[in-house]
Amino acid sequence: MTAIKAEIITIGDEILYGQITDTNSQWMSERLTEIGVKVIRKTAIGDTKEAITEALDKAKKEAQIVLMTGGLGPTKDDITKKTLANYFDTELIFNENVYENIGRLLRQFGRELTEQNKNQAEVLKICDVLQNEVGTAPGMWIDHEGCVFVSMPGVPHEMKFLMSEHVLPRLEEKYIPGHIIHKVIRTIGIPESKLSQMLEDWELALPENIGLAYLPKLGQVRLRLTAVGEDKEAIELQLESEVLKLKSIVTKGIYAEEDIELEEVVGIILKQRDMTVATAESCTGGNVANKITDISGSSAYFKGGIIPYSNEIKMDQLGVRAETLEKYGAVSEQTAKEMAENVRKKFNASVGISTTGIAGPTGGTPDKPVGTIWIGYSDGKKTEAKLLNITRGRKINVQYTTTAVLRLLWSNLANEN
Amino acid sequence: MTAIKAEIITIGDEILYGQITDTNSQWMSERLTEIGVKVIRKTAIGDTKEAITEALDKAKKEAQIVLMTGGLGPTKDDITKKTLANYFDTELIFNENVYENIGRLLRQFGRELTEQNKNQAEVLKICDVLQNEVGTAPGMWIDHEGCVFVSMPGVPHEMKFLMSEHVLPRLEEKYIPGHIIHKVIRTIGIPESKLSQMLEDWELALPENIGLAYLPKLGQVRLRLTAVGEDKEAIELQLESEVLKLKSIVTKGIYAEEDIELEEVVGIILKQRDMTVATAESCTGGNVANKITDISGSSAYFKGGIIPYSNEIKMDQLGVRAETLEKYGAVSEQTAKEMAENVRKKFNASVGISTTGIAGPTGGTPDKPVGTIWIGYSDGKKTEAKLLNITRGRKINVQYTTTAVLRLLWSNLANEN
Repeated sequence: MTAIKAEIITIGDEILYGQITDTNSQWMSERLTEIGVKVIRKTAIGDTKEAITEALDKAKKEAQIVLMTGGLGPTKDDITKKTLANYFDTELIFNENVYENIGRLLRQFGRELTEQNKNQAEVLKICDVLQNEVGTAPGMWIDHEGCVFVSMPGVPHEMKFLMSEHVLPRLEEKYIPGHIIHKVIRTIGIPESKLSQMLEDWELALPENIGLAYLPKLGQVRLRLTAVGEDKEAIELQLESEVLKLKSIVTKGIYAEEDIELEEVVGIILKQRDMTVATAESCTGGNVANKITDISGSSAYFKGGIIPYSNEIKMDQLGVRAETLEKYGAVSEQTAKEMAENVRKKFNASVGISTTGIAGPTGGTPDKPVGTIWIGYSDGKKTEAKLLNITRGRKINVQYTTTAVLRLLWSNLANEN
Repeated sequence: MTAIKAEIITIGDEILYGQITDTNSQWMSERLTEIGVKVIRKTAIGDTKEAITEALDKAKKEAQIVLMTGGLGPTKDDITKKTLANYFDTELIFNENVYENIGRLLRQFGRELTEQNKNQAEVLKICDVLQNEVGTAPGMWIDHEGCVFVSMPGVPHEMKFLMSEHVLPRLEEKYIPGHIIHKVIRTIGIPESKLSQMLEDWELALPENIGLAYLPKLGQVRLRLTAVGEDKEAIELQLESEVLKLKSIVTKGIYAEEDIELEEVVGIILKQRDMTVATAESCTGGNVANKITDISGSSAYFKGGIIPYSNEIKMDQLGVRAETLEKYGAVSEQTAKEMAENVRKKFNASVGISTTGIAGPTGGTPDKPVGTIWIGYSDGKKTEAKLLNITRGRKINVQYTTTAVLRLLWSNLANEN
C-alpha cells in the first residue's frame, strides 16, 4: 500500500537562530512512523507571512498531512494565525470554550485574564478546535482541499498532549485502514550488525504485513515490529508468534519486551524480589544513581549511593583498604570489587555496584590510558568486576559506563551471565 | 547592512523517521548567527535524488550559502554524491589525498581499506575538498553561480570539525567585511522580563554596530553582545566599555563574563582558593555531583558525595539525627542543614551542599506537596537552607534543584547573598 505522506513545519526564529534545539519534530516523526504515516520532509522557518505561506504551498503539493508547531506564543500570535486565516480564505473568530480554558489555566497560577488572552482565544472560523488542556494556545485542525493541516503550539508538553489526545487518533481514523500494532524488543550487548546477521533468515520469512526496524543507541538495539491488518486480534497473535521465534534465536541480551529503559527493568525486578541496591561511583560521578532515581518510586529499592571521588574518601567513607589502593591503584579490579562489596554492606543493601576509571580527557597514564574503566558487582554470594575500554569523549564514556554497570546488575539478576 | 542568508539541509531517512534527533542544525545555526549570517530555513529530507535536487533548487533561490549534512555514510555514498555531480553538471573523481586520509584513519583502528573506501575517496571534480581529519567522508565546498554549497557528513563531531576548521573561517573571509566579536555575560536568578526592563535604557543607547540577544534557559539568561566593525581593537574596546556599563546596572547575578557553565565557574573559584566541596543529595539523586564532575579536572576540588536516599542511610551514613527526621521530616530546613554540615565534616571538605525534597510525581502530601524542596549550604562559619517550590515534571524539578544548589554555592563563594 502507498503510505500517506506528511510534512512537519516548525515556525519560529528561535529555532533558526539556534537558540533552542528542535526536539518536537523527532518525537512527531516517531509517532507518525508508528501509525504508518511517511514523513517526507521537515522544514523550519521564521515567523513571517511569506515564509509560512510558501512552506504551506510547497507542503500541500506533496503531502496529505501538514503538521505545524510554533508561532503561537502570546506575543507572536498574530502573524501565524492571520497568515493561516488569509491562506485558507477565512477569518478569525472568538471562541468561548478556548477563552474559558485559558481563564481556568491562569487561575491555577493565580493570574488574571488580559486583553492578550482574548487574542489567544481567536481561532480560524473553518477549523475544528483541538482543546489544549495543558496550555493557553489551542490546536486547530483544518481540512482543506483534500489535505489536513494542523496548527499546534511549540511548547513540547503542549504539542505532545494535542498530538496524543487529538491529532494521532484522528489521523489514524481518517487515513489508516485497519489496525497498526507495534511490539518493541529491547536488547543490550549485541552489536546491530551481529543481531541482523542472527535474524536474517527469520526477517526474510516474516509475513508481508509485518515490518522490522533496528533502532541502535549506546550499545543497545531496539527491535520494533510493526504489524498491519484488519483483524486486531489476529495480528496480535501473529506478532506474539513472531516474537517467540525471535526469542528462540536471540536467547541472551533481551531485557524487555516493551519499550522501557534498562533502569526501569532493573527496578521492577528488584521490587518484585524485595531486593535493594546501593551504588559506589567514582568515574561516573553520580550518573548511575541519577539514572536509577530517574524512575519515580525508586526509593522502594534504591538505598542510596556514595561518590568517593578521592582515594581519601574511598578509604575513610567506603572502607577500601589502603593496601588495595597502593598495590593495584584506584582503577583496578580489586578496588572495583571492594567498592561494590563495601557499599552493599555499609548501605545494608542486597546488591552493590561500582564504577572506577579514567573518564578523560586528562588523568590517563601509559598503562592505564583514558577510557580504562572497571565496573563491579557484589551480592553477598559473589563479587565480580569487569574491565571496559571506552575511547570516546568524557560525557559519552560516563554514559557507556553507566549503561554497562546497569547491564552487569541486570544480567546477574536475570541470570544471564 | 543586509545579512547574508543561509539554508541548512539535512539529508537522511533516519531524521525523517525520528530515529535520531537532529542536533547538528542547532549547533550550525548558532555558529552562523555568531558570524552574522542569517539562517532563513532548515530542511530535512530523505536520501533520494528528487528530494535533494528540489531542496537545492529552492535553497539557492533565496540563500547565498547552502550547508548540507548527511547522506555520506559508506552505504549511502552513491545517492548524495551522484546527485550533486549531476546537479552541478560535473563528475566524480578519485582523490588521492582523501584516500590516504581514510587509510590513515582505518589503520588507527586496525582495519583495512576496502573497495567501499575507494568510493568514499571520490569527490566532485569542481569542488574544493575540505579534508576531514576525524572521519572518512570528506567535506566538499562548491562555488556555483554566486552561491556557496557545502556538503558535510552528518556525524556530529565530524561536521563540527569541518565547520570550525574550514567552513566558518572561509565564510567569514568571503562574506563578512571587517570583524565580528561576541561577548557573553551569564546571569542567574533574574527573570528575562526583569532583566530586559533593567537594561532597557542601556540597550536603546547601544551603538548601532552592537547587537544584544537574550538567551534564557532554566532560570538563567545568557546575554550575548555582538559587535561588528572594521577595526578589531576598536570594537573590542567598545564592547568592554558597554560591559562595564551593563555591570553597573546588573550588580548581582552575573556569574561569568564568558560562555561557561555555572559548575565550571564554581570549580574555578574553589580551585583558586584551594577549597573543596562535598555533596549530600536526596531528591537530586546524584545529579549535582554529576554536573560538578562533568568538568574535567574536578577531582582537584570535588571530594565526593553521598546520596542518602532513605532515612536509614541519612542517619547511619550521614549522621542526620533521628530527632530531626522525626520532628521536622526528611524534607525540612533542619534536615537540609544537617545534611550539608555533616557531609562537609565527614568528607573533610571546605564546603558542603545538600538537597532534600519531593521530586514527584508520587510522594507528595498536603503540607509537603510535590515540588517542595530544601537546599542546604554549610562552610564551617555558617549553615543555611533555602526552600524551593518547583511544579514541573520529575526531571525538570531535579534539574532546577541542581541549578539552584549550585547557585547557592556560587553566591556564597562570590559573596553575593
